[in-house]
Amino acid sequence: MVTDTLPPIGFSGRADTIRAALDDLPADALAITNLTNVRWLTGFTGSNASVAVLPDRLVLVTDGRYRERAADELATAGVDGEVVIGFTQAEQHDALVQQFRGIERVGAEAGSLTHARWTALAADLPLVPADGLVEDGRRSKDAGEVARIAAACRCADAALAEVAPQLGGGMTEADVRMELEYRMRRHGADGPSYDTIVASGPNHAARPHHEASGRTIVEGDTVVIDVGALVDGYHSDMTRSYVIGDPTQQQTEIYDLLLGIQRAGIDAVRAGVPARDVDATCRDLIADAGYADWFVHSVGHGVGLLIHEDPFESPASTSELRVGDVVTVEPGLYRVGFGGFRIEDLVEVTEAGCRTLTASPKDSPCPPSPPTT
Amino acid sequence: MVTDTLPPIGFSGRADTIRAALDDLPADALAITNLTNVRWLTGFTGSNASVAVLPDRLVLVTDGRYRERAADELATAGVDGEVVIGFTQAEQHDALVQQFRGIERVGAEAGSLTHARWTALAADLPLVPADGLVEDGRRSKDAGEVARIAAACRCADAALAEVAPQLGGGMTEADVRMELEYRMRRHGADGPSYDTIVASGPNHAARPHHEASGRTIVEGDTVVIDVGALVDGYHSDMTRSYVIGDPTQQQTEIYDLLLGIQRAGIDAVRAGVPARDVDATCRDLIADAGYADWFVHSVGHGVGLLIHEDPFESPASTSELRVGDVVTVEPGLYRVGFGGFRIEDLVEVTEAGCRTLTASPKDSPCPPSPPTT
Repeated sequence: MVTDTLPPIGFSGRADTIRAALDDLPADALAITNLTNVRWLTGFTGSNASVAVLPDRLVLVTDGRYRERAADELATAGVDGEVVIGFTQAEQHDALVQQFRGIERVGAEAGSLTHARWTALAADLPLVPADGLVEDGRRSKDAGEVARIAAACRCADAALAEVAPQLGGGMTEADVRMELEYRMRRHGADGPSYDTIVASGPNHAARPHHEASGRTIVEGDTVVIDVGALVDGYHSDMTRSYVIGDPTQQQTEIYDLLLGIQRAGIDAVRAGVPARDVDATCRDLIADAGYADWFVHSVGHGVGLLIHEDPFESPASTSELRVGDVVTVEPGLYRVGFGGFRIEDLVEVTEAGCRTLTASPKDSPCPPSPPTT
Repeated sequence: MVTDTLPPIGFSGRADTIRAALDDLPADALAITNLTNVRWLTGFTGSNASVAVLPDRLVLVTDGRYRERAADELATAGVDGEVVIGFTQAEQHDALVQQFRGIERVGAEAGSLTHARWTALAADLPLVPADGLVEDGRRSKDAGEVARIAAACRCADAALAEVAPQLGGGMTEADVRMELEYRMRRHGADGPSYDTIVASGPNHAARPHHEASGRTIVEGDTVVIDVGALVDGYHSDMTRSYVIGDPTQQQTEIYDLLLGIQRAGIDAVRAGVPARDVDATCRDLIADAGYADWFVHSVGHGVGLLIHEDPFESPASTSELRVGDVVTVEPGLYRVGFGGFRIEDLVEVTEAGCRTLTASPKDSPCPPSPPTT
């Protein structure tokens, strides 16, 4: 497995980090029900669990399917926690409620718990909304996490290096997606980190979130390929854009403009900078060049156990970038009739500035030549 | 595309079906925020939308990314609805709220809306919980939907027919998963319908939800392969189990026992039967044979736009099977040290009883021989 050679993830101190953050809230303990947060806290990867973070202990409640796996995963993560099994949802509810006996204010995740479940828990517990504590902790990736994201980037780079030279050879968008996802696995990924976007030609490439279709990619097309891999729960995210055949002058100009703007965006990423400033750097340059209405999304987002997570680099963001953030920088220019380009790299915020984790060539919109053998 | 030859899905009457169901609730209109329900109602496949189902009109609120796609998808589905764009979450909230002006009681999905969003909407609207209306409508699959599920089953059957003969040839669990998922795509699937389970040997095969690992499959192993495809949003679900090499007497006995029980489960599926009776049919036969503690999950679940949806065939179920339900029948027997077997088919409840949509061979635990060429 790819992960055998990677440094371990530092799970063991996380519950204490969350307990310390609780001091700033009107809550004395925390019910974690968001599964991504459960995984970050405990290493548990199953599809059903709640965690009680109590002042002196941690309890994970799950169902009968996961009795052994939960115990194994907590032990592997080095997490000191008890596993409690509830066979029905009612038993799991009761088991969770029981952990909080005597606690005056129980923080819960109002932003991810459903209203129905919140209402049921609130009938038995003194619930208070306590969102974002784990999400905030999740932002600061440790060496083990960055290594997994970087490994995922390498899988996507390797797959794209094999597939990009074949663009224009009669493949459909869906063929390209299939080959990329297969090859990422062959290079050790657990799978794609999201549905690979392959968007080609005057209409599809003009849609930032187009889904790969049966359209055959042809000469003259702009092609946007947004591809990432998943390694041990961690995501990568990258976009490269191409022109099939000889680029027109307009295609070259717009590509080069975008590339310069994307590089300026990466240069803007460093600790202490408001995330919205990275967005503004690209957005302002796009507007200055007269393409404001060709840019229809924000410049980037955090990546980790989720493909989209804090911090978001958008005009509305209130976050400041920190060391350990892993974020995308992905301006794009789209216009029906022209098609579109997006260039996206994944970067880690470091003490020195930032480090780019994705490595596929982007100097030119021409697909790389097939390797000579 | 696989879907080009399939009958269309009958979207057009669905909003009226939901309006009629509203008469039984203390609600005069409905805010649909669950994306699967949005898709079923409108054909919209994006990742952000809310739908207002009003007495005389239907409005879909989404963000700027989806302006064209939303209009296209509603038109393709033949859904008479207006698309309203909100660029920020606040604008989308306001746009949704505005639709319900003058409505006395607005039903909303308490079981899927987060508590935070419920609280925000409830500040501006007279919300009442109104869950399950669309889920209930979603149960009855029309000809277009069943055709997509059946097409997905064929993709999984074709992929398994190619890969099963190679079991025991040195492949790891992860290799088998990779090949199955690649081949489903080559046969026209949009992707796997869930993470393919490949569980082998005395420990892994004993875990019903094991994830494919780097373990090499070897002689003597039991192997559980749970594989499904996705076609146009519709899922398939199937499990086959194998023994590598010559089965032992115990392996043969347990496999044959399970196969008989699974067939009895399928025979129990027909309209008007309580879903829990299908579970009980298998569960009782397993207990009678002395294997009660080898069976650790329920017998099945509905499949459609979600891989797990109503009706659930479990001891706790209160649903009665109906024509148009598409459900799995999947008893399994698991024991650490032995490994395990699960046999699962996907069946459509018909007027005459039920029709099995999955077709991979299951008579014997021996993998099929490679095709002779």
